[in-house]
Amino acid sequence: MVDCGEGVQIGLARNHIPVGKIGHILLSHLHGDHCLGLVGFIATLGLGQRTGEIVIHAHKDAERIFQPLFDFFCPNLSMKVTFQSFDTRKSEVIYEDDSLLIKTIPLSHRVPTAGFLFQEKPRDRHLLVEKCEALGIPFAYFRGIKKGMDWTNPETGEVIPCEMLTTDPTPSKSYAFCSDTMYSESIIPIIKGCDVLYHESTYSNVDTLKAHQRGHSTSVEAATIALKAEVGRLLLGHYSSQFQSYEDEKILLDEAQQIFPNSELTREQMVIDI
Amino acid sequence: MVDCGEGVQIGLARNHIPVGKIGHILLSHLHGDHCLGLVGFIATLGLGQRTGEIVIHAHKDAERIFQPLFDFFCPNLSMKVTFQSFDTRKSEVIYEDDSLLIKTIPLSHRVPTAGFLFQEKPRDRHLLVEKCEALGIPFAYFRGIKKGMDWTNPETGEVIPCEMLTTDPTPSKSYAFCSDTMYSESIIPIIKGCDVLYHESTYSNVDTLKAHQRGHSTSVEAATIALKAEVGRLLLGHYSSQFQSYEDEKILLDEAQQIFPNSELTREQMVIDI
Repeated sequence: MVDCGEGVQIGLARNHIPVGKIGHILLSHLHGDHCLGLVGFIATLGLGQRTGEIVIHAHKDAERIFQPLFDFFCPNLSMKVTFQSFDTRKSEVIYEDDSLLIKTIPLSHRVPTAGFLFQEKPRDRHLLVEKCEALGIPFAYFRGIKKGMDWTNPETGEVIPCEMLTTDPTPSKSYAFCSDTMYSESIIPIIKGCDVLYHESTYSNVDTLKAHQRGHSTSVEAATIALKAEVGRLLLGHYSSQFQSYEDEKILLDEAQQIFPNSELTREQMVIDI
Repeated sequence: MVDCGEGVQIGLARNHIPVGKIGHILLSHLHGDHCLGLVGFIATLGLGQRTGEIVIHAHKDAERIFQPLFDFFCPNLSMKVTFQSFDTRKSEVIYEDDSLLIKTIPLSHRVPTAGFLFQEKPRDRHLLVEKCEALGIPFAYFRGIKKGMDWTNPETGEVIPCEMLTTDPTPSKSYAFCSDTMYSESIIPIIKGCDVLYHESTYSNVDTLKAHQRGHSTSVEAATIALKAEVGRLLLGHYSSQFQSYEDEKILLDEAQQIFPNSELTREQMVIDI
């Protein structure tokens, strides 16, 4: 789960999201609107007798701030809660499993802030099963071939290259989350070519000065990052409260689409298929 | 405002309640579901450039827990935030102005907990204006007569008693809030005869043992308190999550009404006219 603002447990329940599957919480920065739902969320998991471990990845101050609150509001938790700190000044791998890698993206905001890049690892090549069977390749070799190995016929010594036994794998997907941040071209090499970029667009272009003063971005700046990083899609969000309706927010979309046509507005409870 | 659970600022905004009028926050006890919305609420008031003072009335631990969070999440607030602690073991006046008195009600829960009794002060008597004018009583005396003073005619020395110049005042209203608590008859003298009592009813009668173990009340116990304290109306609330719908909660209402007919179920966003 990325960020944990006030009321997150209410939103998760309302959308029937099984919280038991959440094992890692990534906090981009320690402003209240990004982390004040953490204690309530952990307390509710505890009431539900959640077991195992929850890892909170965040700036090092998170443990100093939140551990006393866990101790006070939810002592004797059924699960283990640990903090893993990251350095927001450099990009580093903070999570890895068989299929996924998560890296931090150093952002520029009023406090230490990181975005997160989710990269699927390369997938297996698609095996041409009938072709393999026709060649008499034993089943035990299939896994290796899908990973890219050629096959050598033990009787004839003939080498059949992997490319003849497989087709290219489904491309791996990647998603970058960048909030909150000023316009910062230093993130471009990290997010280059990702499929989907969420980039905050707190203000419209007329408020560029205000955006810079407050460490935020305009929709034009978000779209410029998307264009320069050659991403697939841009998701806008984190709109200033001056935008009171979808009609108001459309100006952000219009501005962004003039620079990067494949831009979209996000809204609460939206589900995005990457 | 009584208690400040997670998401309270969202609920206040959704219901268009002018938060600028809230000057005092009363926390019954320091369990998360009663106070974890406090930091977000204070931070949002600060963003709105609220001025003046907010007084948080709570157990003494509140300052130790929340002040570091205010310092971290909302430094340089536009308004002053102060803590006033109360002793949950005795009933004491924690607020008073020209028309209102607020007293604590010692409750029995797993941590130090207090309810709150809101008492309107006696109102002015209703002046019989035409009668006063017919008697030639100068306007300057009206305020005193409404407060209960007799009038003496300075020329004749005749004393006209207040009762002849006024009718009885509108009765003062009182409201008692009691959550969270076990069944406790010691609160009866404090809430005796109040117009409206909110008393938690977490469980139904079949879960009386569970209620006692967890420091909560059943609907039967809430109704028994209402009956013995001779209150006007009983509002039930704080239902266990095992009650998933209004139909489920109706059992609590049925049980309570068998003992105290003037019982009602509360629900989120309900407005009660006292």
